[in-house]
Amino acid sequence: MTVYHETVTVQSDRRPTFHDLTDEARAALLRSGIQNGILLVFSQHTTCSVLIQETSDDVDDAGTELLMQDLVTVLERLIPTLRTEGQYRHPGPRHIEAATGRNELPGWSLNTDAHLRSVILGRSQAIPVLEGSMLLGEFGRIYFADFDQVRARERTVRFHIIGE
Amino acid sequence: MTVYHETVTVQSDRRPTFHDLTDEARAALLRSGIQNGILLVFSQHTTCSVLIQETSDDVDDAGTELLMQDLVTVLERLIPTLRTEGQYRHPGPRHIEAATGRNELPGWSLNTDAHLRSVILGRSQAIPVLEGSMLLGEFGRIYFADFDQVRARERTVRFHIIGE
Amino acid sequence: MTVYHETVTVQSDRRPTFHDLTDEARAALLRSGIQNGILLVFSQHTTCSVLIQETSDDVDDAGTELLMQDLVTVLERLIPTLRTEGQYRHPGPRHIEAATGRNELPGWSLNTDAHLRSVILGRSQAIPVLEGSMLLGEFGRIYFADFDQVRARERTVRFHIIGE
Repeated sequence: MTVYHETVTVQSDRRPTFHDLTDEARAALLRSGIQNGILLVFSQHTTCSVLIQETSDDVDDAGTELLMQDLVTVLERLIPTLRTEGQYRHPGPRHIEAATGRNELPGWSLNTDAHLRSVILGRSQAIPVLEGSMLLGEFGRIYFADFDQVRARERTVRFHIIGE
Repeated sequence: MTVYHETVTVQSDRRPTFHDLTDEARAALLRSGIQNGILLVFSQHTTCSVLIQETSDDVDDAGTELLMQDLVTVLERLIPTLRTEGQYRHPGPRHIEAATGRNELPGWSLNTDAHLRSVILGRSQAIPVLEGSMLLGEFGRIYFADFDQVRARERTVRFHIIGE
Repeated sequence: MTVYHETVTVQSDRRPTFHDLTDEARAALLRSGIQNGILLVFSQHTTCSVLIQETSDDVDDAGTELLMQDLVTVLERLIPTLRTEGQYRHPGPRHIEAATGRNELPGWSLNTDAHLRSVILGRSQAIPVLEGSMLLGEFGRIYFADFDQVRARERTVRFHIIGE
């Protein structure tokens, strides 16, 4: 049995961003040499998710694929972007204090919406690997979603492949 | 280590359908000979999901289990069925054009609601296998959900078992 | 290849409860001796979920972390707590009858909201294990969520580790 691990970094923005990482996952699988097993695409960030969806072909003015833009619209209805203090109970005073102790600006904690969106959409995707290929079907593509709107930053996505 | 793979096909309808595949998964596990590991039930379709839930015992007039009917009601509120053009931004003109190029009817792409519902409910379930059995608990059953309402078709579900 | 399995029990209450099981998962991984693989945290209960989120630091008067309290507020809007008979179609008469046959009180089946909330949030989390550690990132913690509000009881969470 082999366990192969690799990371890729993506650059987020101050709006929900979606990166198609299908090609990167395929390349990692090839480098792993694993023919049969499971490829786990995992986000360790608590305001991010990993999704499988088809490509939209079309994008909006900000470059976001239309299906992902529709997803953001749905999420905005369910979990509105945090705009006014007290809109959510989180972050509380201890959380702000802990963040400040890590030299974070207080405003960086005002991403409750992103935490809630990411927990609903999930943290990872497990993909079957058979005879050297991911079984994503004709249309399935892997997206890394970053719902954090308070700051742009570099994010890490993990490809964790187990098999032989 | 062994990796065992099997597919099962189900017939969808022009409404959200839910197939209980627990018995099929159990039979696949038996055929695999794997005693300990993980059974991944995976949908490669981008308008479908795999869920674990208990049986409802009761069904509605269309034969849908009541709990799944309640789920559809909740989803209809969150992500309404696409009924009028422009209700969602997807599908855009390039997407329709790409689909037409694959000899799809334009109406087949009007399933934005199904794409969004499936991405929220997830693509797969990973189930622990111990001493030859899935650890689903007393009530857990595996359902394949197809949210696509624009056409009835044959769908593929994958049982991917890794272990020994 | 090794498959290691362990369970932990938690006590729920007559409100949504969230237990941080990160330390228990870490201890199970240590006992397993597995250095590289996948740790699956799995709930076999159909009204419960497993989530990854950061700690809130602050808690509300009932002791619930604020971010989880915000999650409950969002879920209450999407899937209101069952308060009046007929609010959901489930449970139907056969389901109540089957439950009564198992010596359950009829009221114990009035947890449709919990079944629906758990199916949206998912049943498990698969976590990459590398060089003896879970790759949860700086802030990721593992929570067991019990959405069932009709009775307090003991619940089982499974740590299923596969690797070597």
